[in-house]
Amino acid sequence: MDVTAPAHRLSAAVSAASRLLPSRAGLRLQADAAGLTVAGAASDLAVRFGCPATTHTDGSVVVPAAPLVETLKVLDSELVRLVVEGTRLALRLDNARFALPLLPAASVLADPPAQVSSVDGAAFASALRIVAGTAAKGDPLPLFTGVRLQASGSRLTLTASDRYRMAVARLPLSSPGTLDVLVPAALLAEAARQARGRVGLHAGPGRFGLSWADGLVATAVLDAGFLSEDSIPSAAVDTRVTLQADTLAAAVRRVGVYAEDRRVLTLEVGDAQVRLASARQDTGEAEELLKADVDGGRTSPSFQARYLLDALAAFAGERVVLSIQPGMRACILRAAEGGEVELTYYLMPMLSR
Amino acid sequence: MDVTAPAHRLSAAVSAASRLLPSRAGLRLQADAAGLTVAGAASDLAVRFGCPATTHTDGSVVVPAAPLVETLKVLDSELVRLVVEGTRLALRLDNARFALPLLPAASVLADPPAQVSSVDGAAFASALRIVAGTAAKGDPLPLFTGVRLQASGSRLTLTASDRYRMAVARLPLSSPGTLDVLVPAALLAEAARQARGRVGLHAGPGRFGLSWADGLVATAVLDAGFLSEDSIPSAAVDTRVTLQADTLAAAVRRVGVYAEDRRVLTLEVGDAQVRLASARQDTGEAEELLKADVDGGRTSPSFQARYLLDALAAFAGERVVLSIQPGMRACILRAAEGGEVELTYYLMPMLSR
Repeated sequence: MDVTAPAHRLSAAVSAASRLLPSRAGLRLQADAAGLTVAGAASDLAVRFGCPATTHTDGSVVVPAAPLVETLKVLDSELVRLVVEGTRLALRLDNARFALPLLPAASVLADPPAQVSSVDGAAFASALRIVAGTAAKGDPLPLFTGVRLQASGSRLTLTASDRYRMAVARLPLSSPGTLDVLVPAALLAEAARQARGRVGLHAGPGRFGLSWADGLVATAVLDAGFLSEDSIPSAAVDTRVTLQADTLAAAVRRVGVYAEDRRVLTLEVGDAQVRLASARQDTGEAEELLKADVDGGRTSPSFQARYLLDALAAFAGERVVLSIQPGMRACILRAAEGGEVELTYYLMPMLSR
Repeated sequence: MDVTAPAHRLSAAVSAASRLLPSRAGLRLQADAAGLTVAGAASDLAVRFGCPATTHTDGSVVVPAAPLVETLKVLDSELVRLVVEGTRLALRLDNARFALPLLPAASVLADPPAQVSSVDGAAFASALRIVAGTAAKGDPLPLFTGVRLQASGSRLTLTASDRYRMAVARLPLSSPGTLDVLVPAALLAEAARQARGRVGLHAGPGRFGLSWADGLVATAVLDAGFLSEDSIPSAAVDTRVTLQADTLAAAVRRVGVYAEDRRVLTLEVGDAQVRLASARQDTGEAEELLKADVDGGRTSPSFQARYLLDALAAFAGERVVLSIQPGMRACILRAAEGGEVELTYYLMPMLSR
């Protein structure tokens, strides 16, 4: 193998692949007339990224990911040449040589499953950032660590929950398609960070994949049942509060300083205003009044500050409607004005003191 | 007490005081015709910061630092009013109230020791950033956790070492003064970060202090002997290498990826060039050639990458001269062109493989 590639493009491809793979995985570099392909596989996961390159001699090698990523990140050269020299892959610059040991060739990557439909990459990434952020990290039940992707007609629905809140995002599909899978949230979030342009949705028996111009990620789906927003009662809404999400979030941050360890705040809904309040034995108490459009009766649900901030961050820059139900029923957050991505965020209240 | 202060100025004063004090210390706020003073004390340490304010009623209270710092940091108001209300200090805005419990009054702050001389704050801060960074964090011997400050004639000398390297900085004093103290490095580094304008140097029996326009820090000195660069042999220099510090640092970062666990690199000095080299069993090997002005014979000292990078960072943006001695004697780094702060950095070589 002997190939010359733009250093920053190769660095981006190699970093992207290594972030998606387990830390000890090797990377396969393949050079041919089409350029350079960076690929990796681990248990049920496969990733592939393309990089433009001028190939002098075709070839394919597997090298350790970490030193390759680190070296490319700190090169200050425009081009880098990769040459196999005996048992080494040498990265050559005019005045420097970095030589990586070759690893045994890894298993061949399976082809991705068939494409079902596609979505706009930017809308998908922004929806997924919020929904995947709602999944639990390391919950013993896999159900709460995944994002459910459902395609039905021309609409894709993303759902995730960690039991305390649930986010549901809907966005348009380019063409009707059918899909219903539960996919690891952490992997999806990372893939969405890297995808751009139109993103293809792929599915086959037990597998799911995403593809875009020069990248591909395929993974086994989680076999753990499905989350559904139908399980959350929402018919008892009796109060609606509308205000700027960022204004409420800033007040939550200030008043939250004075909340007890669990950081529970009370949102007292009055006439045309809400009063955020908290108290803590050792640090005193705080209250802040905010103007708001209020429709309905007086009520004072309590929330954990951290969860309320997460929910409000999903509506940053927008006016948000909080639909409040009596008792221990979820508060439902939606944007006051609709956009391309339609987001519903369910937040469980806390027992107040 | 009843006083109105600009929120961001008060926030800066309160944050500065709390960063210098142990985490559980209370802060004393005192309001009078001169404005608001934020002060704190802990064991041998005393800090004081001024803040402009309009005092409606004189007074003095002690409150917990953490919630005060946190609240002021996230206020988005221009002014904040502080009023004592029963057992609380209330921070009042138009639409919000944050109430802190009052703590028992702390011990009275001792006056700072007498001023010995003063230095330019910017030069002092930049010298101290490098020298204090060379002291050890948490060494069992206090000698290696301090910075020695010596005033002699019109020159201040700062010295620190963690046994593996030593930094010595010299800068002009505004007026002749005498001083020779060892002061905790971490505290000095933080104080220098906050000092501006002219900085007064204060000393009295067993105590040292720094003062500037609206701030003061006084502390007990370390009683642990003194560091001296005279203890480092420097007469055997037989090779001098001059090059851009940043160019060498960038190459150290790249080649260091391939160094063994202790990250030892070899600097092979040749004719008009140096060759940086490293090798590691599992990740391959690397070498990089750099042009340099070389005066003297061929030699190849080895250094730990991290320490070499720290040393080179002290000369960022400058050409640096490495004066190399044979055997296990220190390499001496100095700027090729002098500035207001005259810095000498001694770096111990490592046994190479």
